[in-house]
Amino acid sequence: MKPHHRLLDLLPPIVQAPMAGAQNHRLAASVCEAGGLGSLPAAMLSLADLHSELQALQQATAHPYNVNFFCHAQPAPDAAREQAWQRALAPYFRELGLDPETIPKGPGRMPFSAETADVLAPFRPAVVSFHFGLPSPELVARVKSWGSLILSSATTVTEALWLQANGADAIIAQGLEAGGHRGMFLTDELSTQLGTFALLPQIVQAVQLPVMAAGGIGGASGIAAAKALGAAGVQIGTAYLCSREATTSAVHRSALQSPAAQHTALTTLFSGRPARGIVNRLMRELGPLNAAAPAFPLATAAIAPLRAAAEAAGSSDFTPLWSGQNASGCRDLPAADITREFLQAWHSD
Amino acid sequence: MKPHHRLLDLLPPIVQAPMAGAQNHRLAASVCEAGGLGSLPAAMLSLADLHSELQALQQATAHPYNVNFFCHAQPAPDAAREQAWQRALAPYFRELGLDPETIPKGPGRMPFSAETADVLAPFRPAVVSFHFGLPSPELVARVKSWGSLILSSATTVTEALWLQANGADAIIAQGLEAGGHRGMFLTDELSTQLGTFALLPQIVQAVQLPVMAAGGIGGASGIAAAKALGAAGVQIGTAYLCSREATTSAVHRSALQSPAAQHTALTTLFSGRPARGIVNRLMRELGPLNAAAPAFPLATAAIAPLRAAAEAAGSSDFTPLWSGQNASGCRDLPAADITREFLQAWHSD
Repeated sequence: MKPHHRLLDLLPPIVQAPMAGAQNHRLAASVCEAGGLGSLPAAMLSLADLHSELQALQQATAHPYNVNFFCHAQPAPDAAREQAWQRALAPYFRELGLDPETIPKGPGRMPFSAETADVLAPFRPAVVSFHFGLPSPELVARVKSWGSLILSSATTVTEALWLQANGADAIIAQGLEAGGHRGMFLTDELSTQLGTFALLPQIVQAVQLPVMAAGGIGGASGIAAAKALGAAGVQIGTAYLCSREATTSAVHRSALQSPAAQHTALTTLFSGRPARGIVNRLMRELGPLNAAAPAFPLATAAIAPLRAAAEAAGSSDFTPLWSGQNASGCRDLPAADITREFLQAWHSD
Repeated sequence: MKPHHRLLDLLPPIVQAPMAGAQNHRLAASVCEAGGLGSLPAAMLSLADLHSELQALQQATAHPYNVNFFCHAQPAPDAAREQAWQRALAPYFRELGLDPETIPKGPGRMPFSAETADVLAPFRPAVVSFHFGLPSPELVARVKSWGSLILSSATTVTEALWLQANGADAIIAQGLEAGGHRGMFLTDELSTQLGTFALLPQIVQAVQLPVMAAGGIGGASGIAAAKALGAAGVQIGTAYLCSREATTSAVHRSALQSPAAQHTALTTLFSGRPARGIVNRLMRELGPLNAAAPAFPLATAAIAPLRAAAEAAGSSDFTPLWSGQNASGCRDLPAADITREFLQAWHSD
């Protein structure tokens, strides 16, 4: 018996992946009520919004839930790079009749901080998950002090061992198939990233902690396969993107349920870090890994006005169409139905 | 019941992946004798060597076997590109004290042809597998005429549907984790390539043919996972590379059983087509996808003298260290033992 398993055994084996920008507490609560572990993505929330979302989630469910944070280091803005990026985007601003001066100057996504911890503390969520490693040892200790279990994503065996040594209670093995941001934090070399079939069993073998599988799991057969490879649970995102409770935009839902979803790529255009989404016009024309994109999360700002204008006209040309490599599980169903189906698949053998 | 299953049901669910340059009939025969489907890689054999290897294989086993061919179109040599490539490699030739004039002018790997079929016909192998699509309809018809089942690799759902429409009897879903050459043939865009977790169930869903899984399968748990995802069998390569019967070089065996195996990448440096191998000095210094590398298979020739000289000095600097992303199954055991373990895993649930 691995040491931490008894804690994790209290938690559901189905984790709804936190998806910033495509959901709020409603999706998380529906998953929790159906017996899964719902997740609230906090990376794009202000402290005030985080507080109100946590309140709403707590009112909507008495079951355990997960709150997810990014824990990157904020980069120093680089004026030259910003200008190069705005030059690359200038033709699109002209085409859509937009003024580049309308680009918001906000910080984009904020990393987990002492202030975030202050907001979180009274809620004592059963689980707190991090992306891009872990926050400082002091913050990790603080989160543990109120009883939360800590999860974080590993994209290599080396990252899994680091997370185990630095306070994680369980590890999410994030295979290369996964949609959204790669959780990679000890390297930025994309060739180190492993498919779930290779990553999961090697992490299971390397660590003592329980390992959740993520990446390419579209439904019952994927859940059974992850279990066969030694997963203690699965984290599933893409299959929830078209659920009733998700706030996924119309153009995004449409792309997920079209043949376009067969072709995703890792792209830095929308945030500055590699993230997997369905290939769209911006990715085709600039190249998905264009070196001009500012460092994470500074690339976020310049795309926002383009995206808003294009989406208003029904176009996904500038939308980050986050998706894993297996969108075949996307269905327009209540999240509770999807969750119960996944739980049944987990428990069926 | 899918239409072709009754044919495939006569065949073993464990296919030893053909690995040109790392094995001959001895590995194939040992796998066959243990109850798996052994494969003879023919891509780098002359017609005379193919004939003698087939004779030796037939003498060594009465069980069904597979013979594997490449079916690429030979490119026109491009003198300018060849010169650019030789310039890129010149410092290495100098370092090793080699004369670039010693680069052999041979054709590298030959595609399957009418002449190959003439050699193959009297042996009527139970299975003939192809990489890079299928040969001409006339050659496909000829291979079928003597009763061979035809397998080929698909790296996307589109390729699987194409293979089904063009005469394949079963499809190998080659996930991105797989070692050696990507079988991709309808696209050269690497972002289309899917991890096994995403590729396998989507191909299973899309085609009527039986589907074998390849890529990232290192042992019993991977075999169970592939089965859960709907595979009718598995093709495993990397786990055989350190078997007693493999002709894998000493430097290659050593890399596979070292931490270096954690980091593979797709590279065009050794042949001109993307293939997965452990990152070594040449890949690090030139970049694994250097645009100067000549078209497949013409890039093969220039590396050969460097490789020979370096290996003689115990260095893997210029060796294509083919490996999938999961080398954890590599063991110095008789191939028969490995095969029996895999068969037991397949049949254990």
